[in-house]
Amino acid sequence: MTDTTHIPAGEAVSGQQRRIEEDLTYRVLASFENTPDARLKQLMQALTRHLHAFIREVRLTEEEWNTAIGFLTAAGHLTDEKRQEFILLSDVLGASMMTVAVNNQAVGDATEATVFGPFFAEDSPEIPLGGDIAHGAAGQPCWVEGTVTDTSGKPVPGARIEVWEADEDGFYDAQYADGRTAGRAHLYTDADGNYCFWGLTPTPYPIPHDGPVGKMLEAVNRSPVRASHLHFMVTAPGLRTLVTHIFVEGDPQLEIGDSVFGVKDSLIKAFVEQAPGTQTPDGRDLGNQTWARTRFDIVLAPAGT
Amino acid sequence: MTDTTHIPAGEAVSGQQRRIEEDLTYRVLASFENTPDARLKQLMQALTRHLHAFIREVRLTEEEWNTAIGFLTAAGHLTDEKRQEFILLSDVLGASMMTVAVNNQAVGDATEATVFGPFFAEDSPEIPLGGDIAHGAAGQPCWVEGTVTDTSGKPVPGARIEVWEADEDGFYDAQYADGRTAGRAHLYTDADGNYCFWGLTPTPYPIPHDGPVGKMLEAVNRSPVRASHLHFMVTAPGLRTLVTHIFVEGDPQLEIGDSVFGVKDSLIKAFVEQAPGTQTPDGRDLGNQTWARTRFDIVLAPAGT
Ligand SMILES: [Fe+2]
Ligand SMILES: [Fe+2]
Repeated sequence: MTDTTHIPAGEAVSGQQRRIEEDLTYRVLASFENTPDARLKQLMQALTRHLHAFIREVRLTEEEWNTAIGFLTAAGHLTDEKRQEFILLSDVLGASMMTVAVNNQAVGDATEATVFGPFFAEDSPEIPLGGDIAHGAAGQPCWVEGTVTDTSGKPVPGARIEVWEADEDGFYDAQYADGRTAGRAHLYTDADGNYCFWGLTPTPYPIPHDGPVGKMLEAVNRSPVRASHLHFMVTAPGLRTLVTHIFVEGDPQLEIGDSVFGVKDSLIKAFVEQAPGTQTPDGRDLGNQTWARTRFDIVLAPAGT
Repeated sequence: MTDTTHIPAGEAVSGQQRRIEEDLTYRVLASFENTPDARLKQLMQALTRHLHAFIREVRLTEEEWNTAIGFLTAAGHLTDEKRQEFILLSDVLGASMMTVAVNNQAVGDATEATVFGPFFAEDSPEIPLGGDIAHGAAGQPCWVEGTVTDTSGKPVPGARIEVWEADEDGFYDAQYADGRTAGRAHLYTDADGNYCFWGLTPTPYPIPHDGPVGKMLEAVNRSPVRASHLHFMVTAPGLRTLVTHIFVEGDPQLEIGDSVFGVKDSLIKAFVEQAPGTQTPDGRDLGNQTWARTRFDIVLAPAGT
């Protein structure tokens, strides 16, 4: 006797076997019934349902279960103050990006959010409008400008804009041992909601891939490289905080695929390269080097949406 | 505009939002398309689907995501050669038991399997039929006997039976620092498939609960205690290896709930207490103490089922 009802996929199992599996799930769900906190109860029961459904659907072998335990153990042992393998795991499975998505619901034409990433640091230096965030970080100078508005189109003066990025070698300042602060700063929009600063044209870099997550990516033939991007976090009273990046139009990694699924079409911007000697917006003398410019207009959703 | 199609539960989201979430899942699934190993591809894609469905269903907050990352990190840091917090996590979520279930499909009246647990050790001492596994472990002596047959009822001579259990204080030998070997042994069935040995009447014990898994159990109001049990692993050529326990009829923990969901009704056995001085099956002199006896007839499924 076989009965495949309620088996989402995979091999058919007998009715006797199916009842055994369903009864087990039922008992585990029931074990959470006395959870005092209603939200925790919901989370644990939903986790149980989805975890059990996964194991049943794929008919997980004991060897595969062992591999999973070993993977989590290795990830735990690699994780310390400077390296977070579980966040990387969440990132490459799209779980971080899905969490961002459900917590930043689409609101009209509000700018889309993307992953926060592990390289933000508190206490970045403040720069004036038109200032330079590089502070010695190597790369092609890039003029970034735009306006911050709300969803009704009203400019937002005094919005705080945090920006951070890797240097042309693909490293954030925190990845150097010398304690430098470079490639990060914050600034504020002017009375008309405008902002501008000098940064670096973003370049691609791999997420740390010398651990179990990197081994997994290799086994599934995936690139660990992130599409070139510049991080933004924008805060203003009464408006929803926006954590996002902008990406570089034409970056080949956009075709290959961003390793953490952070790309959204609306966040891909033209970074227009300028010939050496081209007049800069603020008269800065860049000598005989190329530079780039881009525009990123930011629309903030109402707080609480 | 709201459209709740494909949202399994939780709040309704807009059609725009739903498309964003579905597109993300689609992109993550597509990223595994070039996995050379077909099974690995199936596992990663199924994991992605279930993980994303969980996050969408519960509308996981960023704070909850952070808590989950912190939980996994703490579990990883506690895990070492002697302590395996990820196995405990799998156990208390019923994931270990579900893996056992799908890998030991019900076959007629074959004895049911249950969780292996972390306390098995290779190289247990061999004892003769009627020998004592205690080797100094404290507890009430218990005579265990039975027959090993296949599903056609034919006795299995020479089946190897590994047995292991905690002492009356709830500790396995490996949990003591002195390197003792106690409460574990192996023996072989006789020409008629019979076996018998002296063990200890099982008593309840908690799984290690001074770590993140223990904190979780406390938060959901669950007992960390396992129902009293005696572990068996039975192997014989041409037959499916059986890993199981027997449980003690009347143990109050059977009502409260076994913390790892290992109990099956067919594995609950009467452990009949004997008054002091009652004649023992093999003439062993137990002096003025009580003892118990139980019977466990074992039916092995065919190999490859
Ligand atoms: Fe980044
Ligand atoms: Fe045990």
